[in-house]
Amino acid sequence: MIANHIKTKMQAGSWIRDMFEKGTELKKIYGDGKVFDLTLGNPDVPSPKEVNESIAKRASMGDNIHGYMSNAGYPEIRALIADRESKRNGVNLTANNVTMCVGAAGGLNCVFKALLNPGEEVLVQAPYFVQYGGYVDNHGGKLIVVPAKVPDFDLDPNLIGTYITEKTKAIIINSPNNPTGVVYSRETLEKLEKVLTEKEKEFGTDIYVVSDEPYREIVYDGVEVPPVMDIFHNAIIVYSYSKSLSLAGERIGYVAISPNCADVEALCAAVPFATRELGYTNAPALFQYVLKDCVDCQTDVDAYKVRRDILMKGLRELGYEFPEPQGAFYIFMKTPTEDENEFINNYCLPRNVLAVPGRGFGCPGYMRVAYCVAEETIKGAIKALR
Amino acid sequence: MIANHIKTKMQAGSWIRDMFEKGTELKKIYGDGKVFDLTLGNPDVPSPKEVNESIAKRASMGDNIHGYMSNAGYPEIRALIADRESKRNGVNLTANNVTMCVGAAGGLNCVFKALLNPGEEVLVQAPYFVQYGGYVDNHGGKLIVVPAKVPDFDLDPNLIGTYITEKTKAIIINSPNNPTGVVYSRETLEKLEKVLTEKEKEFGTDIYVVSDEPYREIVYDGVEVPPVMDIFHNAIIVYSYSKSLSLAGERIGYVAISPNCADVEALCAAVPFATRELGYTNAPALFQYVLKDCVDCQTDVDAYKVRRDILMKGLRELGYEFPEPQGAFYIFMKTPTEDENEFINNYCLPRNVLAVPGRGFGCPGYMRVAYCVAEETIKGAIKALR
Repeated sequence: MIANHIKTKMQAGSWIRDMFEKGTELKKIYGDGKVFDLTLGNPDVPSPKEVNESIAKRASMGDNIHGYMSNAGYPEIRALIADRESKRNGVNLTANNVTMCVGAAGGLNCVFKALLNPGEEVLVQAPYFVQYGGYVDNHGGKLIVVPAKVPDFDLDPNLIGTYITEKTKAIIINSPNNPTGVVYSRETLEKLEKVLTEKEKEFGTDIYVVSDEPYREIVYDGVEVPPVMDIFHNAIIVYSYSKSLSLAGERIGYVAISPNCADVEALCAAVPFATRELGYTNAPALFQYVLKDCVDCQTDVDAYKVRRDILMKGLRELGYEFPEPQGAFYIFMKTPTEDENEFINNYCLPRNVLAVPGRGFGCPGYMRVAYCVAEETIKGAIKALR
Repeated sequence: MIANHIKTKMQAGSWIRDMFEKGTELKKIYGDGKVFDLTLGNPDVPSPKEVNESIAKRASMGDNIHGYMSNAGYPEIRALIADRESKRNGVNLTANNVTMCVGAAGGLNCVFKALLNPGEEVLVQAPYFVQYGGYVDNHGGKLIVVPAKVPDFDLDPNLIGTYITEKTKAIIINSPNNPTGVVYSRETLEKLEKVLTEKEKEFGTDIYVVSDEPYREIVYDGVEVPPVMDIFHNAIIVYSYSKSLSLAGERIGYVAISPNCADVEALCAAVPFATRELGYTNAPALFQYVLKDCVDCQTDVDAYKVRRDILMKGLRELGYEFPEPQGAFYIFMKTPTEDENEFINNYCLPRNVLAVPGRGFGCPGYMRVAYCVAEETIKGAIKALR
């Protein structure tokens, strides 16, 4: 009696979560230390100490701090974020351009709810975070996947251009990218802006650039993530504190809409409206206050760099191929077998190593390994694979 | 360029939130003490002190407590809730029957996502919480509103029966009711179960009873809210700690599915799947831990009773008519003018009294006043109306 579309989707499954659940099972059997679970982007590096200090402080104030506020969030927090994004992007946002959200996943859903008429299309270039498909489908849209550019997994603006139709309402970019760790250069993004602008003229449409930026601060070797509002005229930033403050389970993030966007006023009203309509209602209250104290804090990125370097070195010694991740905390590697599930099931799982098949990101023949886990887990995985 | 359906809905507006925003504006002009805002169900009575103690304690442990867990929530919290609902309802739930959710609003959306095929119908009897319409519509369903039973606003099982078709997938009940405060008796609910069972046989369908219970503990004068799983074979409870622990802004609640439900196994898997698919991902992590410490705590219901009694007395002295609320924290009163907006706009607003028009709940000619506000606000409102 459950809905047919849910039945179908559940059968298709989520490779990431399936592996996560499989890992939980294996750990029960073999014990934590014997299972090398590289599946989930669940930050192992703890929140900066200021986060828990702020939580304790706010709680001990004894005020009634847990009630509703405006759906968009507390005005002072939105103003704070508007100010930071203004400085980063060189545009002028006010609190009105910012809606606090239930994580980036909540933010993306609010944006698509606000934008999409039935049958409108959202582009993304593979490999991509598989849940985007659901987030677009939830609101009657259609996710169009542009094939990956191998082997470097950069964006390919010209190829993307050939997929744009009069139905294209938005394109998702995600840099640093999950699952490849690739950071798109300013040059590449400017080329994409040029293609988008040409296509907007050709079709008489507006194409929004939805920039999913949860990994923005998780970058290595001095790489910088170009600010999208400085490059794209129709830029919408969806941000989450899941990674930068290690708050993945607390569901706190925001949507920031560029003042240069087409129909900006309606859009700035539609996103908080969508938050209410979709039952998120508002971003968790306490963690909005925590941002007031901790907006300048950041998790220990160097700890991820150490883990990355151990994993890269180990995998390279074993002869695996992948583009060097400049950010995020994943390596997207080619599997020795064409069918990556064959490799995962017959080679990795029997050695208690868990990874996510590339088809979960629209790229069969690859697999994703996450290094946001303990060093021992990474070392154990390499030893097991050797 | 925003979606047409959103544009239309935004123009129609939400009467509750519109009034909330209007109240915020008036308070800026006249100051807090001069505006008598009876619009929003935002608990004024603070959380039990154990809640903030638990938050502070958990934060000071310094563990990495803010990460992802299984989409359905921490197993031990789900088991705890299963145990409580089992005792309350006289059925045998396990952790598997419980999914932690982003408030009851999130829970309702997950349930409808899991249940509804396009065009399937969900019944509700007026007056009802207006967001139900959006929550059903989000997932391709159609909310069918059964007219109110005046003047007592009880459920009318026979009338409901005449609205059931082969497309009816669910019925929402909400007791204590928002906006009337009415608690449905066991006798009424048993009559409804009889009607539903007959109609299920007639059409060869299953009709789920979605019981939205955020006000379950907010009851007065020893009234008891009958446990729905003891009455309905297809019962799904959607609960929130918004009111019982005054955590409305923190978005923490759950869905509990009766083991007697049709297709129970698929449904118990579909709700956590929907949580992920809809971008809620999981209920906020910290507040799941807080429940471990505070699941037996409760906000000060007597404080609401005092407020209710002051408001009832005051309104009755002024000659207004309404059913005495047995629970929740609202009074749903007949307005002296047939068009309640005339009364609100020409009589209440000029006196800085804010209330929600009954049409916001499917009942024109009435208005909702909330008494989850300070006593001074209630007294001030009565004085202003006098």
